[in-house]
Amino acid sequence: MAVLHRVVIVGGGFGGLNAAQALRRAPVDLTLIDKRNFHLFQPLLYQVATGGLSPGNIAAPLRSILERQKNCHVVMGDVQGFDTARRAVLLADGEFPYDTLVIAAGAQSSYFGHDEWEHIAPGLKSIEDAIEIRRKVLTAFEAAERSNSELERREWMTFMVVGGGATGVELAGTLAEISRHTLRHEFRRINPAEAQIVLVDAAPQILGAYDPGLAAKGANSLVTMGVSVRTHTKVLAMSERSITLETEGRSETLATRTILWAAGVKGASLGKQIATAFGAELDRAGRVIIQPDLTINHHPNVFVIGDLAHFQQENGKLVPGVAPAAIQQGKYVAKLIATRLKGQKLSPFQYKDLGSLATIGRRSAIAEIGSWKVTGLIAWLMWLFIHLIQLVRFENRLIVLVQWGWNYITFSRSARLITGKTLPLIEGQPRDDSRTG
Amino acid sequence: MAVLHRVVIVGGGFGGLNAAQALRRAPVDLTLIDKRNFHLFQPLLYQVATGGLSPGNIAAPLRSILERQKNCHVVMGDVQGFDTARRAVLLADGEFPYDTLVIAAGAQSSYFGHDEWEHIAPGLKSIEDAIEIRRKVLTAFEAAERSNSELERREWMTFMVVGGGATGVELAGTLAEISRHTLRHEFRRINPAEAQIVLVDAAPQILGAYDPGLAAKGANSLVTMGVSVRTHTKVLAMSERSITLETEGRSETLATRTILWAAGVKGASLGKQIATAFGAELDRAGRVIIQPDLTINHHPNVFVIGDLAHFQQENGKLVPGVAPAAIQQGKYVAKLIATRLKGQKLSPFQYKDLGSLATIGRRSAIAEIGSWKVTGLIAWLMWLFIHLIQLVRFENRLIVLVQWGWNYITFSRSARLITGKTLPLIEGQPRDDSRTG
Repeated sequence: MAVLHRVVIVGGGFGGLNAAQALRRAPVDLTLIDKRNFHLFQPLLYQVATGGLSPGNIAAPLRSILERQKNCHVVMGDVQGFDTARRAVLLADGEFPYDTLVIAAGAQSSYFGHDEWEHIAPGLKSIEDAIEIRRKVLTAFEAAERSNSELERREWMTFMVVGGGATGVELAGTLAEISRHTLRHEFRRINPAEAQIVLVDAAPQILGAYDPGLAAKGANSLVTMGVSVRTHTKVLAMSERSITLETEGRSETLATRTILWAAGVKGASLGKQIATAFGAELDRAGRVIIQPDLTINHHPNVFVIGDLAHFQQENGKLVPGVAPAAIQQGKYVAKLIATRLKGQKLSPFQYKDLGSLATIGRRSAIAEIGSWKVTGLIAWLMWLFIHLIQLVRFENRLIVLVQWGWNYITFSRSARLITGKTLPLIEGQPRDDSRTG
Repeated sequence: MAVLHRVVIVGGGFGGLNAAQALRRAPVDLTLIDKRNFHLFQPLLYQVATGGLSPGNIAAPLRSILERQKNCHVVMGDVQGFDTARRAVLLADGEFPYDTLVIAAGAQSSYFGHDEWEHIAPGLKSIEDAIEIRRKVLTAFEAAERSNSELERREWMTFMVVGGGATGVELAGTLAEISRHTLRHEFRRINPAEAQIVLVDAAPQILGAYDPGLAAKGANSLVTMGVSVRTHTKVLAMSERSITLETEGRSETLATRTILWAAGVKGASLGKQIATAFGAELDRAGRVIIQPDLTINHHPNVFVIGDLAHFQQENGKLVPGVAPAAIQQGKYVAKLIATRLKGQKLSPFQYKDLGSLATIGRRSAIAEIGSWKVTGLIAWLMWLFIHLIQLVRFENRLIVLVQWGWNYITFSRSARLITGKTLPLIEGQPRDDSRTG
């Protein structure tokens, strides 16, 4: 294989996996490195966080996805940095030489300089995050049922979701459904329907990425479902038991035991190593600023794609950090690599906006495709269909379809396992158990 | 409710849950306390440990199982002990008074005085155990693929299963299938089929609970599948990288990175508190020795059932620690409580042996029902059917059926997520991440 052009891809998300698969027939020696042994379908992660799906339903082992692709080695490894002189990717426990390097390390939650909030308000980027959010939310209802103090009970039954983008809206909407429907008959001392779900956003409107009229409809459906939507509202401070908000100058502290963070993302920490090794420039969100062909300036054989990439389109807009963008970039890079090997050239990357979809709740979603705007049942069915067919393996599509059908008919969410840090509830100081599922 | 007879059940496993459900129509104020918020279908836990099913597939939230049973309160709490004077169950964070107490706290893995082995060789009693075993097994193949030392590679690809009962056989059989079929095309540097799976048992024969002829057939199918079965073999010592065995006086040390423990169980640690509080007698396995009516001697209102109970039948044999026994005992206790409330009496508990079933692998199992002995496909189909219908919720039956069908046709095991402690692989010193799924 040594004679073959060596391509190393860092990251098995949408960008990296699609780059690898698109290089199926290319005469390259391909290595895909990921910290995890599975590809994660991030858009459905909030359903794991809310007990609708199991982690296994939205993840697929990278090896089994790529088992038939003989030119591809899958490596489970944690990339620590790069040796530009020797053209090698450095792992904690080894290194991999490359001729062409594709970095698709993704993004992480950003707390805008308040990293101390991370332990209080988990974000939703990994299976671990989803399990932790699931634990926090379910434990809150258990603790409320156990609590003998009316005040404490109200603390446990107040859920704050920070960030009014798609993820925040999906989390808030699902929490409303769980408290109003799923848990309806399950408790004896509390009425889950009395749970307060508050969605906070600093912008004048949630779902800011959408057409204002459409976003307003989305907000209205959320309110109808029982979510209090607070726009123009910034988070000033938070603790295990409270959050301090500022709305147009007025600040207010609310008692809550559960704060979920969906307010922002930044480039994966690997961005710093990329800046150091390749002299790449990072934007304020820690994303790597790349060239029209997705390479790093002065490093034509090093690509950065997906959520970690800062790519400015001709219209001045940035390519958004969404799955379709990462997929398009992954495929472009693969095509460019194959083209170069033939000694040919390829025009710069062009992002095709396929539109945006956000689900709000049962039979409710908003969709914007070009100038076409859809809401309600049709948008919701589009959302279901598109997410279902996008799942990487047919098996997951099948299981998720069955699970969704069941959940829809019965309002049930059965993947409601509290694992990890668990008891006791009342002190609010859970025991830690580092092995959990 | 205060006027009603207060029944507190500790543990939501097969015994406790069936007791609670059988008290559906009894005029009692019922409280079911469990450390976890879900009922776990233990017999299929090994399939989670081997990536065939997701944790959510074999667990069901206790609240949703019991939501319609209005006389039952579900409490998520960790029972620490009992106050016999005040007739109260003591939790870390509260207490619950009882008139009648049913303790069904189950069992835990027993290392026969070698508790230091627990961290090296996980047992299989909880979701956490299953996730940990899944992590260890999958990580071993990943590390073998990464390793550059032939010696180390062989260490990673040697899997020891200690204990030749149903669980050990099921684990060993599934490991053989995974290495021979599931992973066949997934690696580039190692051939998973070269993995050594060794099943160790101190007895002269594995599956000792079965008719010798049947057990021998079971052992033969295991060998055919590629498992080396070593009987008459005791474990003398183990480390992170080796295990020392003794076979008929000869001792031998094998290099291995993965040791799974299925050799024995003992009563839950709560047994000690029961002994202290009620002066109950424990057997050598820490199980509470109980009366013919399943009560503790001198405590006619305190029952112990399931794996935590030591019940000697008239034929001198102990009731085995299996689900059907716990279910029968749970139903008996419920019936006895209701009968007593009517001022009537009930004859002592009689265990009905419904027979034993163990699955060995694809299309292979053994079943013994009275004098009727079955092997091969028919026994395997019986096993599938019985386990499927026994799953507590229809939803789980549906999903598991779909998942099994898929796994059977494709040999796939897609719930193969490595979570928790993960990288780096090579040092064998994994990073700890306390939030995992």
